[in-house]
Amino acid sequence: MKAVVISDNNVELKEVEAPIPFGDDLLVEVKSAGMNAADLLQVKGFYPPPPGYREDIPGLELAGTVVEVGPRAKRFRVGDRVMGIVGGAAQAELALISDAVAMRVPENIDIGLAGGFPEAFTTAYDALFLQGALTIGERLCVHGAAGGVGLAAIQLAVNAGARVTATSRTTQHKEELESLGAKVLHPDEMLGSGPYDVVLELVGAANMDANLKELAQGGRIVVIGVGAGSRFELDLRSVMAKRCRIMGSTLRARSTEEKAYLAAKMENQVIPLLESEAIRIHEFMSFPFSQAKEAYEAFTRSGKLGKLIFFSSSRP
Amino acid sequence: MKAVVISDNNVELKEVEAPIPFGDDLLVEVKSAGMNAADLLQVKGFYPPPPGYREDIPGLELAGTVVEVGPRAKRFRVGDRVMGIVGGAAQAELALISDAVAMRVPENIDIGLAGGFPEAFTTAYDALFLQGALTIGERLCVHGAAGGVGLAAIQLAVNAGARVTATSRTTQHKEELESLGAKVLHPDEMLGSGPYDVVLELVGAANMDANLKELAQGGRIVVIGVGAGSRFELDLRSVMAKRCRIMGSTLRARSTEEKAYLAAKMENQVIPLLESEAIRIHEFMSFPFSQAKEAYEAFTRSGKLGKLIFFSSSRP
Repeated sequence: MKAVVISDNNVELKEVEAPIPFGDDLLVEVKSAGMNAADLLQVKGFYPPPPGYREDIPGLELAGTVVEVGPRAKRFRVGDRVMGIVGGAAQAELALISDAVAMRVPENIDIGLAGGFPEAFTTAYDALFLQGALTIGERLCVHGAAGGVGLAAIQLAVNAGARVTATSRTTQHKEELESLGAKVLHPDEMLGSGPYDVVLELVGAANMDANLKELAQGGRIVVIGVGAGSRFELDLRSVMAKRCRIMGSTLRARSTEEKAYLAAKMENQVIPLLESEAIRIHEFMSFPFSQAKEAYEAFTRSGKLGKLIFFSSSRP
Repeated sequence: MKAVVISDNNVELKEVEAPIPFGDDLLVEVKSAGMNAADLLQVKGFYPPPPGYREDIPGLELAGTVVEVGPRAKRFRVGDRVMGIVGGAAQAELALISDAVAMRVPENIDIGLAGGFPEAFTTAYDALFLQGALTIGERLCVHGAAGGVGLAAIQLAVNAGARVTATSRTTQHKEELESLGAKVLHPDEMLGSGPYDVVLELVGAANMDANLKELAQGGRIVVIGVGAGSRFELDLRSVMAKRCRIMGSTLRARSTEEKAYLAAKMENQVIPLLESEAIRIHEFMSFPFSQAKEAYEAFTRSGKLGKLIFFSSSRP
């Protein structure tokens, strides 16, 4: 099979051995695979995948058709359309995903787009609801709103009855973000715009002083992205005075059991919204695997709105 | 009535007008009233009480006998033994407490000690269980363990089936802390002693680097005291990598409704432990109100183990 392979801190499409499904693995013919910041870090030699995954093929999410199943796979069968989060190696014609972690792709959803769904929406769902405990009527501020996780978070929060403010450094996406139901600000306009019950931090530590100032009593700051810097001086008195919580996480390091738990929550609570078109996948650009270099170059440029998604040559 | 009155950043016993119970107030003849760090801050001109409380009489907790009730008091009656947390003005012969916030004093508990119970145990209960979600078998580290909140936290955590490590700067209290069921360390010995699921921070920001290093995946750091300093450089990557939560609070600023909620939880979950002697109040020193100056001087000294408690001259 062909795969996007890392070599010399860059990528190229190469012929490699196809993986073999063991245990509850599904072998999936990949129809689409979203790109994530972690892929770029992995290409640059940082952020290696968890143990058990090939280090030389990036890719944390995929959608496709099951072509073979391991002996202990219970839920999905050959021919099923699945999507999900994997520890790595998704950017290939064939990839493995645990039967317990895979999610069904609704019939009305384009499988060539679905590979851009799992990581952004699972991250946003976990951050907002399982960590941040966002609930109806609460005020949410999403920093870095134009990225895949940001767009997912706005849509999920609006659907949950929250009042959503989104910040973005560029003004070019204002209309699209507003059309999703968010009030849109430049991050420098955050001061005075609160209070917020939940802040979703997808950018970095530079926002933290304003986040703490604009946080409501009992508020939660959920940190998922720190691409723009991770260090700042925290005054614990402000944490005590606001009775707030600062929390963060990554999805990738979690155990298969935890990912399976999340996938079950997603199937129950979020995929129905995708199926009913209450939420949608924002594809910004797409590339065939053969244009892997161009795809990674495009990913480094600013001004993106939504996901960059690889598609297989067999995409219709 | 006589009261401990603040004047020129010091205290003296003075004759002042007795408070009058309105609404659901109980007028309590104070038998004992614990001292807290917040009292000292208030005497020094910081940390004023919330609106509606006299600023010139310190005291956040009391125990005593109800001598008069406001027209809307529903639970307690004249003659009842009560204790509880108030916004201020507890260090006086007579003080007001809301009927909804007052807690019963079990018959077998000395009312002359009970005034040292509410603040420490409610703070520890709220921090460990409502905020930190400490549960059976988890590993807890309590910094500043020899203070009133620290001793309360050790006892509650041990009773909850947690594995408890306590740190204290002085070695003189080691035996007593161990007798409560804690492993005892100097705070500098924390590195390598974890991992901990919950850290209760009662000292300050200087411990935070070690707290984060020794925290378990999914751990919680609950910050309740920062007397030794509140600022440090936080790297949000460590929060993400540990999938942890940093949280903090104060009790004093909470609404009467929130305090009533806490008091109900305490009556249901903690006072039975006091009654059965599974937990106890540690009195370090006690003073009559007439020795208010001496009491505040003693409070500033280090090496305390447990509570300093005022008692009224009518103490048996």
